[in-house]
Amino acid sequence: MNAPVLNAPRTVRLNAADNVVVAVDPVDVGAVAEGVTARARVPRGHKMATLPIPEGSPILKFGQIIGFAAKDIAPGDWVHEHNVGMHDFERDYRFAEDARVEEVLPVELQATFQGFRRANGKVGTRNYIGILTSVNCSASVARFMALEIERSGILEQYPNIDGVIPLVHGGGCALDVKGEGYDILKRTQWGYATNPNMAGVVMVGLGCEGFQIGRWKDAYGIKESDTFRTMTIQEIGGTKKTVQAGVEAIKTMLPIADAARRETVPASEILLALQCGGSDGYSGITANPALGAAVDLLVKHGGAAILSETPEIYGAEHLLTRRAATREIGEKLVDMIHWWEDYTARNKMEMNNNPSPGNKLGGLTTILEKSLGAAAKGGTKTLAGVYHYAEQVDAKGFVYMDTPGYDPVAATGQVAGGSNVLCFTTGRGSAYGCKPTPSIKLATNSEIYRRMLDDMDINCGDILDGVSIEEKGQEIFDTVLRIASGERSKSEQLGYGDAEFVPWTVGATM
Amino acid sequence: MNAPVLNAPRTVRLNAADNVVVAVDPVDVGAVAEGVTARARVPRGHKMATLPIPEGSPILKFGQIIGFAAKDIAPGDWVHEHNVGMHDFERDYRFAEDARVEEVLPVELQATFQGFRRANGKVGTRNYIGILTSVNCSASVARFMALEIERSGILEQYPNIDGVIPLVHGGGCALDVKGEGYDILKRTQWGYATNPNMAGVVMVGLGCEGFQIGRWKDAYGIKESDTFRTMTIQEIGGTKKTVQAGVEAIKTMLPIADAARRETVPASEILLALQCGGSDGYSGITANPALGAAVDLLVKHGGAAILSETPEIYGAEHLLTRRAATREIGEKLVDMIHWWEDYTARNKMEMNNNPSPGNKLGGLTTILEKSLGAAAKGGTKTLAGVYHYAEQVDAKGFVYMDTPGYDPVAATGQVAGGSNVLCFTTGRGSAYGCKPTPSIKLATNSEIYRRMLDDMDINCGDILDGVSIEEKGQEIFDTVLRIASGERSKSEQLGYGDAEFVPWTVGATM
Ligand SMILES: [Ca+2]
Ligand SMILES: [Ca+2]
Ligand SMILES: [Ca+2]
Ligand SMILES: [Ca+2]
Ligand SMILES: [Ca+2]
Repeated sequence: MNAPVLNAPRTVRLNAADNVVVAVDPVDVGAVAEGVTARARVPRGHKMATLPIPEGSPILKFGQIIGFAAKDIAPGDWVHEHNVGMHDFERDYRFAEDARVEEVLPVELQATFQGFRRANGKVGTRNYIGILTSVNCSASVARFMALEIERSGILEQYPNIDGVIPLVHGGGCALDVKGEGYDILKRTQWGYATNPNMAGVVMVGLGCEGFQIGRWKDAYGIKESDTFRTMTIQEIGGTKKTVQAGVEAIKTMLPIADAARRETVPASEILLALQCGGSDGYSGITANPALGAAVDLLVKHGGAAILSETPEIYGAEHLLTRRAATREIGEKLVDMIHWWEDYTARNKMEMNNNPSPGNKLGGLTTILEKSLGAAAKGGTKTLAGVYHYAEQVDAKGFVYMDTPGYDPVAATGQVAGGSNVLCFTTGRGSAYGCKPTPSIKLATNSEIYRRMLDDMDINCGDILDGVSIEEKGQEIFDTVLRIASGERSKSEQLGYGDAEFVPWTVGATM
Repeated sequence: MNAPVLNAPRTVRLNAADNVVVAVDPVDVGAVAEGVTARARVPRGHKMATLPIPEGSPILKFGQIIGFAAKDIAPGDWVHEHNVGMHDFERDYRFAEDARVEEVLPVELQATFQGFRRANGKVGTRNYIGILTSVNCSASVARFMALEIERSGILEQYPNIDGVIPLVHGGGCALDVKGEGYDILKRTQWGYATNPNMAGVVMVGLGCEGFQIGRWKDAYGIKESDTFRTMTIQEIGGTKKTVQAGVEAIKTMLPIADAARRETVPASEILLALQCGGSDGYSGITANPALGAAVDLLVKHGGAAILSETPEIYGAEHLLTRRAATREIGEKLVDMIHWWEDYTARNKMEMNNNPSPGNKLGGLTTILEKSLGAAAKGGTKTLAGVYHYAEQVDAKGFVYMDTPGYDPVAATGQVAGGSNVLCFTTGRGSAYGCKPTPSIKLATNSEIYRRMLDDMDINCGDILDGVSIEEKGQEIFDTVLRIASGERSKSEQLGYGDAEFVPWTVGATM
């Protein structure tokens, strides 16, 4: 008996270049959305064409190709399996064919933030002292050191220091010291030791572990200094003496670390880690594309952002290879895809990101579209670099790092890569936080934002109510700069980050 | 120009049944050791025959067969590669052929300790409240709960409670929920939840993780109760509210947990976990066989002990199958060996416990002898059961649990199996400690004992100076009972155990 609501269906345009919009509410025949009159019913979450798409032309969502018109599509048409095809696009990498020289603002026009310029030129957004551990066997000693510093009250004398963080983990021994697992841990430790958010580092080991501190120091030419000290429990002679030695080393570092001062630096010094966890049906239409818009802004301002989570972009790597700046960069990504196929097969699992029947009912037409929902947080810029897990990121612009999808493991790799800020989208609600890198949490819907207000920094749910992706992208970009300048994110206020250092464990534990 | 020292070379007899002794000092020709005159020079760490061993007869060390005489061996002969062979013994499992009905003292003659008898009949040696985490995403919330309880000072009102322990880890998501990795975590969580050293448990999850608390509860028929509560951050709505809910749940448990009282119980209620880490050349001739003697005593008193660390007993499984109580028990062990061969191969590693040239120079003749140096801590009794990682141990006597050799991972499996005391031998020095199960550390040599006096509970190095394996075994057994009764081990005094919960991660991290 209710009058049909024809005029108010909400839709979202995910990128200005798109020829489709996504229906937030079901769009009935005859309803008008974005000035286009629907020619067919478009269910919630599905796509409606807003431009004519001739047969064979690409369907663009997230500013990316998600498939090709199988027949001529008119504005107002529902766009789904019945009129979208893939032909052999999937298996065709076309390295670098969409590479562009991206516009970067001159430094005097770049946005700025207040950061800690380090001796090596990198810029920190926080000022921590880290206690690294070579192996789980020294984890408690690292924590005892941090606890003793905390209990001593000495940090009150050093207001410019954000804290002393024990970075403990479950690995470091009984691994193949000539294998991938060792290399990953080696890079991760080095990345945390050199992250610009660290003002000083003590590394403590047991002594007999597979991950030998001496070998690690040799690999990177690391020298002991006033702000970098290593020690082992076996060498020093037990828990108490080692804690004492570590505390003394930290106390020597405190005044040095505290002398650091924030100064005005350009946004190009931001290396932003991109994460999503606890995704929902809104992730791909609100928070992820909004974060992508922020990334596009950041790249324009000279900064860099790291997309990751290989199992979640699987099937869309062909689009990333097209965006690769060079064939070499694209090929590195394809090699990673092949590595993952082997890794999962060896472990009796499989890479499969095809849309399920439920996904299709929800409006996802192709594997590209599904994976691009996760990849949307990377924006649309040329892929300037591809990195292995925990490799040092040295490019500016949009880059990719190979990681699992699992949040703490993925983020650990990105922080090791040098990230000084992290943005994390979540639909079902994540409580993730990180040290030494501040984590900003973006809710994909207003309900989870309200339910977890203590944990969420930004609500992207209002995109469903008409806030544009571009506006939200600007809000995220501005928030990144504020957090980078020292404003504390929600997870920092709550004290997160002491339990979330989780290096990727690859290989057998012997 | 020094006079040769012919009369004082120290030797160790590792088991009364042995037909060899081990030289602690080099034994020169003509020197007398254990009343036997050396017929050849026996280097340090090598073996001298003390009985005639006819060609084809077994060489017995640790009370076990380590090889066969390749020619007639006389008392005083050096026993090594030149006169020891293996024939095809290695590949011949001979299930249960050495099984015996082991002597167990009647309960009124068993030693006793003071333990907490739980409602299910099991006996705890400690009285903890545990905060389990289904996934790393709830790790910080678990720690915030414990911190808030600690800071509140409320534990002072409950002197019978040993503490509130957050058991955080790096896994719980992005795993194959139908695979081995999931099953291992499932058993580990269940084992910690039901370990008799736990008086109450709160389990906290995020909500969307692969390790679903609801599924886990269904698997074991777990019901919520005054001493068992579960919750998720997504359901409750964020960090602060979940911490609050957890703290309230714990506060409800505190008076119930505090009401537990120690009572006199027989030694048969001990389930002893056996560990070694940071082994050295003395491990196999001091601490390990002494711990084995303590295990033999414990089994006689009706208790149980768990040998583990499959990569370290590899190559000696043929002796364990002979000691198996039944063919079925032996076959379960052999299946595990095959699983490990596949697991390591899939991960591009290999199982290889053959003596290296360095091992041989040090006196280890065969793979059996090498692996038995690790297995010696299991004693000589009939193998009463074989368990998968973190499986509930329900047999009395000497049992085996499949674990990696890596200390925290191995011990986590044993504690999940129900261990209420743990003995850990170390030569190079380990700082390991555990909650909720007290860990007793045994030094293999006097130097490390003295250097790490704050960490070491028992010095087994004095075996080199004439203390017998049997005497040391009695000392260990007595110490186990004292620690079980509430005396705090060194690692407990230092506060270890909050960072050493490391469930075995098997499979790919997606
Ligand atoms: Ca994701
Ligand atoms: Ca993720
Ligand atoms: Ca993530
Ligand atoms: Ca061992
Ligand atoms: Ca071990």
